Amino acid sequence: MSTCKVVIVGAGFGGLRCARELAKTNGVDITIIDRNPYQLFAPLLYQVATGGLPEDDIAYPVRAAIPGARFIRGDVVRIDRPAKSLRLQDGSVHHYDELVLATGSVGTTFGVTGVAENALQMKSIQEARIIRHRLLQTYEEVEVGHLPKEALRVVVVGAGPTGVEVSGAVAELQRRMEDEFPDLAGNSRVTLVEAGPRVLPMFTDKSSARAQQNLEQLGVRVMVNAAVDRMYPTDVHLKSGEVLPAGTIIWAAGVAAPSEWADLGDTDRAHRLKVDEYCQLGDGIWVIGDTSHFAGSDGRPLPQIAPVAMQMGRHVAGQITAQRNGRALTPFVYKDKGQMATIGRRRAVVEMPNGMKLHGTAAWLTWLGLHVFYLAGGRNRVSVVADWMWNYIVWGVGPRRTVID
Amino acid sequence: MSTCKVVIVGAGFGGLRCARELAKTNGVDITIIDRNPYQLFAPLLYQVATGGLPEDDIAYPVRAAIPGARFIRGDVVRIDRPAKSLRLQDGSVHHYDELVLATGSVGTTFGVTGVAENALQMKSIQEARIIRHRLLQTYEEVEVGHLPKEALRVVVVGAGPTGVEVSGAVAELQRRMEDEFPDLAGNSRVTLVEAGPRVLPMFTDKSSARAQQNLEQLGVRVMVNAAVDRMYPTDVHLKSGEVLPAGTIIWAAGVAAPSEWADLGDTDRAHRLKVDEYCQLGDGIWVIGDTSHFAGSDGRPLPQIAPVAMQMGRHVAGQITAQRNGRALTPFVYKDKGQMATIGRRRAVVEMPNGMKLHGTAAWLTWLGLHVFYLAGGRNRVSVVADWMWNYIVWGVGPRRTVID
Repeated sequence: MSTCKVVIVGAGFGGLRCARELAKTNGVDITIIDRNPYQLFAPLLYQVATGGLPEDDIAYPVRAAIPGARFIRGDVVRIDRPAKSLRLQDGSVHHYDELVLATGSVGTTFGVTGVAENALQMKSIQEARIIRHRLLQTYEEVEVGHLPKEALRVVVVGAGPTGVEVSGAVAELQRRMEDEFPDLAGNSRVTLVEAGPRVLPMFTDKSSARAQQNLEQLGVRVMVNAAVDRMYPTDVHLKSGEVLPAGTIIWAAGVAAPSEWADLGDTDRAHRLKVDEYCQLGDGIWVIGDTSHFAGSDGRPLPQIAPVAMQMGRHVAGQITAQRNGRALTPFVYKDKGQMATIGRRRAVVEMPNGMKLHGTAAWLTWLGLHVFYLAGGRNRVSVVADWMWNYIVWGVGPRRTVID
Repeated sequence: MSTCKVVIVGAGFGGLRCARELAKTNGVDITIIDRNPYQLFAPLLYQVATGGLPEDDIAYPVRAAIPGARFIRGDVVRIDRPAKSLRLQDGSVHHYDELVLATGSVGTTFGVTGVAENALQMKSIQEARIIRHRLLQTYEEVEVGHLPKEALRVVVVGAGPTGVEVSGAVAELQRRMEDEFPDLAGNSRVTLVEAGPRVLPMFTDKSSARAQQNLEQLGVRVMVNAAVDRMYPTDVHLKSGEVLPAGTIIWAAGVAAPSEWADLGDTDRAHRLKVDEYCQLGDGIWVIGDTSHFAGSDGRPLPQIAPVAMQMGRHVAGQITAQRNGRALTPFVYKDKGQMATIGRRRAVVEMPNGMKLHGTAAWLTWLGLHVFYLAGGRNRVSVVADWMWNYIVWGVGPRRTVID
């Protein structure tokens, strides 16, 4: 049997899980392509953005991470479907028998005026670094009079898990920064703006209410039914006419698949490629994770979260192996593992698929445990995991972050 | 009794120790001025340069670090001795009754041709970050053919503690990078170049020999009696005529005091200001730490190391308090605490003032203990200290560093 050449584009949760499973099969030649030489642990980007974790802690080197898989650092600029090949920015052409597209998602402005120019997004290490620098630097600038005190106000748009998590973490950071800049105490503020009627809309009403209550305990002003009309460098204008002054605007209101693959097939509003029940497009192309539109049992696309990507990655690896061995394909079935969000450092909301709900510290420990062990566990990175937990747990002991230009 | 206004320039080991002691005295108004809002833990810069520690771990916020002391972020551009005032870059003028200069040291090229243009120094976070990026990025560049394999060679100039420590850490980093880039295995190399007859010249012969042996076990090529004549972007030329190709050249051959204070008094070759037995210049100016030339019992200036700066800082605080209370001044006496250097992660050489010597793991643990608890302990930064130890101890478990542009 000849070797089957599998090219996986994207070294995220989905792509790497797929590669790891395929590496167990003989006769498969695996190439992983990504523009960065690391796996980004995106669910903790907000920790980097708020100074809780150093950036190395959420970026794991992917080279040599999976024995037997080749890694190429590069940007895919073209996919030639009939020729079954793709071309990188450096001009090199790579043939594939099976192509797994696992390119994740990017931030999207939904066309709201001023978002691209004035809001900070949080989809990459670089963006998280910029937010962190802005948050810290603003205190310096206000103290010496280069910026008005209003610049210490932060507006977060979008109350999904990312928006909720970053709001809580910014509120905690602000309290600590005010200890360092006592003259500025009382001027910091986080406002979380959500267009829908409640925070964490995908959770139950009760969990939403708890999350909002926890945020308010941390000093976050929560505004629901508040849609953003447009924004300017230092102001967010709501559709109601209210204007929120802000030194930092964080946009956490939506993600979309990268638009460059849209011509490969049917896409939805968020540029996701619609796949069949096996996660395939046809012609040996599979699409997984955030880039994929897979209709769930309720007809709606599966959420853009790591567990979906990982399950799809494992499933597609299984299908490629089955195909090779002349076995029939099996439809993908998503096993809901529940959902969770942290609010600050000791609170979280967790909803299990069996209807069980956790709040407070128990939920926070569950969140920590699942993030740290379940998601990172496959890489067996004892050191990173321990460093993380340690960083995370002792964060409260003393100031740790400062402006390093 | 009127308030005594003390201005301390430099938030390093010396300046902060001085401020902390002065804060115990009533009637003293303390201002600390530094161009950075953090204390740099310089003895561990080489760890940041080689990917062992994140930069936040060696930069502690200084604002609010000492209750009762004011912090101003700024650059001192002029000292007006008769008027007892200094001027910052932003134009503000600050009066003092007592001025403590604790401005540390900077790298010096000793006028060797090509050093300033081609060698990387390691005196700031920014410089350490550049070295780290260069070391990691070179593997990427060589792999895709943008740089020749020779670029993986590193030359370190100067075999004092800094040169020895960085050589060992780079050698360990290279071994790990070759695991990630197996195609490049066998091409990395560190060469440590020392003009004198042995490494760690301030240690005993026996400790020097041990250190050299340990370095060689890590794969470092050690060249003694090898003076650098000049350097070019990819070559170091020795006086012997030998040429060492290098992708990265790290200059650890010498430090000097910042030259801008030279007109305040007599200076030595390294721009250090010669002080009297109380560490003073006169006119209410005190000079401590690396900026100070204090003749030790053997007539030679005290070494430019943290324990000297800290002891001087405490001493000067005591003198300012004594003066204020009408008591006589006491000459400064340096208590030698010994010296140490690490070589890689499990080896070190330690020499105690009582003649006791330690090598190997015992020495390494001593080094770790003293650095972590003695030097950082005064700040009571449990979290940072623990994070450090953890990072440091588990470093061997898995790859942790990658290029994040």
